[in-house]
Amino acid sequence: MATINPEFANLPAAYLFSEIARRTREFQSQNPGVEVMRLGIGNTTEPLTPKTLQGLRLVVEKLASVETYTGYGDEQGDARLRQALAEWYQQKGLRVQPQEVFISDGAKTDSANVSSIFDRDNIIAVQDPVYPVYVDSNVIAGRVGKLQDGIYDNLVYMRGTEENGFVSPPPQTKADLIFLCYPNNPTGAVATKDQLQAFVNYARTHRSVIVFDAAYSAYVSDPNLPRSIYEIESARECAIEINSFSKWAGFTGVRLGWTVVPMDLVVEDTAPEQLNAAWNRRQTTMFNGASNIAQEGGLAVLTEEGQKECQGLVNYYMESTHIIRQTLEDLRIRTFGGINAPYVWMRTPNGLNSWEFFDKLLSEAHVVGTPGVGFGPGGEGYFRLAGFGHRENILRATESIRQNLKI
Amino acid sequence: MATINPEFANLPAAYLFSEIARRTREFQSQNPGVEVMRLGIGNTTEPLTPKTLQGLRLVVEKLASVETYTGYGDEQGDARLRQALAEWYQQKGLRVQPQEVFISDGAKTDSANVSSIFDRDNIIAVQDPVYPVYVDSNVIAGRVGKLQDGIYDNLVYMRGTEENGFVSPPPQTKADLIFLCYPNNPTGAVATKDQLQAFVNYARTHRSVIVFDAAYSAYVSDPNLPRSIYEIESARECAIEINSFSKWAGFTGVRLGWTVVPMDLVVEDTAPEQLNAAWNRRQTTMFNGASNIAQEGGLAVLTEEGQKECQGLVNYYMESTHIIRQTLEDLRIRTFGGINAPYVWMRTPNGLNSWEFFDKLLSEAHVVGTPGVGFGPGGEGYFRLAGFGHRENILRATESIRQNLKI
Repeated sequence: MATINPEFANLPAAYLFSEIARRTREFQSQNPGVEVMRLGIGNTTEPLTPKTLQGLRLVVEKLASVETYTGYGDEQGDARLRQALAEWYQQKGLRVQPQEVFISDGAKTDSANVSSIFDRDNIIAVQDPVYPVYVDSNVIAGRVGKLQDGIYDNLVYMRGTEENGFVSPPPQTKADLIFLCYPNNPTGAVATKDQLQAFVNYARTHRSVIVFDAAYSAYVSDPNLPRSIYEIESARECAIEINSFSKWAGFTGVRLGWTVVPMDLVVEDTAPEQLNAAWNRRQTTMFNGASNIAQEGGLAVLTEEGQKECQGLVNYYMESTHIIRQTLEDLRIRTFGGINAPYVWMRTPNGLNSWEFFDKLLSEAHVVGTPGVGFGPGGEGYFRLAGFGHRENILRATESIRQNLKI
Repeated sequence: MATINPEFANLPAAYLFSEIARRTREFQSQNPGVEVMRLGIGNTTEPLTPKTLQGLRLVVEKLASVETYTGYGDEQGDARLRQALAEWYQQKGLRVQPQEVFISDGAKTDSANVSSIFDRDNIIAVQDPVYPVYVDSNVIAGRVGKLQDGIYDNLVYMRGTEENGFVSPPPQTKADLIFLCYPNNPTGAVATKDQLQAFVNYARTHRSVIVFDAAYSAYVSDPNLPRSIYEIESARECAIEINSFSKWAGFTGVRLGWTVVPMDLVVEDTAPEQLNAAWNRRQTTMFNGASNIAQEGGLAVLTEEGQKECQGLVNYYMESTHIIRQTLEDLRIRTFGGINAPYVWMRTPNGLNSWEFFDKLLSEAHVVGTPGVGFGPGGEGYFRLAGFGHRENILRATESIRQNLKI
């Protein structure tokens, strides 16, 4: 008799963004004609840049001709793109080789799949609050204990608080696999080099592995803040880095990301390169490569012209983020982030919990945001607004918040 | 201390197609100037059809404009595409609803991921020989016992033989999750409706679940042979079906597939729709949707014009398959498949084992094929040739086999 994976019953009732979509639909059906403005999901809205489009048009025509058509590529990604990404790191002074770069269909899948190369009894540590995929994927895989009152057993929470600027220090207890997301989703906090060095030191001491999600790295404008874990001494021996074209090149729908597994990364007393080989095996066995169309787009993004254009997208979304942040500050709401990240994190006013404020913001201002508690128990009482959106919508949403939110 | 998933050491030394690529590269470096002809990986070579290209050009221009740009879509897939696929089944007289269809980046990922919604102690049954992903992904997940002499403990092998026409009957022993691939990769065998009915009956009796990989269904030309498990009575209560745009629309590089999880599918004493909900949760948690570009291409494929054009691709590859089959028969090699499937399965001559014949075919005829043993122990002594390739290459390869292979 087949039986269902019991861990699905150990997940929260609904994936955060599905629940937001459900409540939004419900509001809309009860309030026909009312326009809802979305500052919720971090979803890009601006067109792809000219250079990217040139790459996409080119590859579609390649697929139209018998001489240039391509079918299956390497599961690890197009060699040209792996090379271009290695050079992208090298231009920042970081040592990354093409065979350490694995192209994927996005940071979400890689974040969810990366634990599979580690043993099932490895202890997971996550920031709290944080993007829920790290926890949920490890729940499904059976690496996390039971959920009770919103807290999982056998999971190390690294609590971000107002006091530590939403950058928790390394855990006090044993953790084998440490997920870090900086710039952080949802708080917008960015760890300094010293703060990341403390994690690398912890990992080197305890022979742990850091999984560093750098999906928002392009939003770091402060030159003193790190954009990659590999800016930290000895990180190549203990850290995997995941990144994406989604947020800086507008590829949320196109789907393209990558993961770096350094050859120097070792666990136990294993041979060097063994983790790189394990991820290689995982990807060749369970993945068939990212779309050749998306990959050609990624190559265009990585040209000098492409990168320059994409910086324009980043600037655009950051200006929107600043407008949101200013609005909240003018309303004397306590805000965080929104400087080197496209997310503004706020304390909910009047002691409301996160979902209460979600409903209040939706019903009063017709604005959809993201409840902080959806990112972990440490997010309760907080709320996230995202700077992704057309400028006129950002302006209408913030104006509606100013006019209609009762605080 | 982080530790590596020990199951990686329980896999064969290399993924089949990586090993083929390695041996081919080695031959080429030792024999510079010798042209190698590939009948190995089932990789499409012909350009996308005009209707598909129209869809792709359209979506690239959509992404160029602020009014029509799209970012994240539903993780389950574009509602239009789910609807179109449901109608595609309905036109064949099969009852499939849009919310039962989950769009993915291909059949390989779905085949590899589908087991994750089942409990870890479920017993897996696989055809032998068969596409290696079903076994390997379950090895990585810890559902299969130790590999000894090419045979896994705690895995039910359903042996395809010349005697049963490479269509094994249902297992004699307990199996909870049964992977079936028809038309079969690699043997090209296609189960009849009666043969599939026996599996559905087994599954209904034992409350097992069938995972039916129909990636080659478009190659079935015999109207009496089933193209979908849902042509079988009661299959909706016990079967998941996986399919792909790769082989009939030329999407091997574009990446697009789908999985059907019927609402009626139940295990244990669970509520109806629970498996559909589990797959929905798995996909929303660990996947971010297929590329919007690929999905628009898929919509074009499913138009009447698109399907007609893609039938032309199928006919083209089947003509090549027939040429390969005829060549082998003329050489009095025992051949199977190649009628309702783009694969020709052959007994290796002179009692060679599969890899010995691989090396012989490569060194004598400069043709790359696929060793049968790479598909499981039951494939030892057999060999697969694929009808995917430009016609002139197929003709050159078969001519070289006729002239140069010493048997």
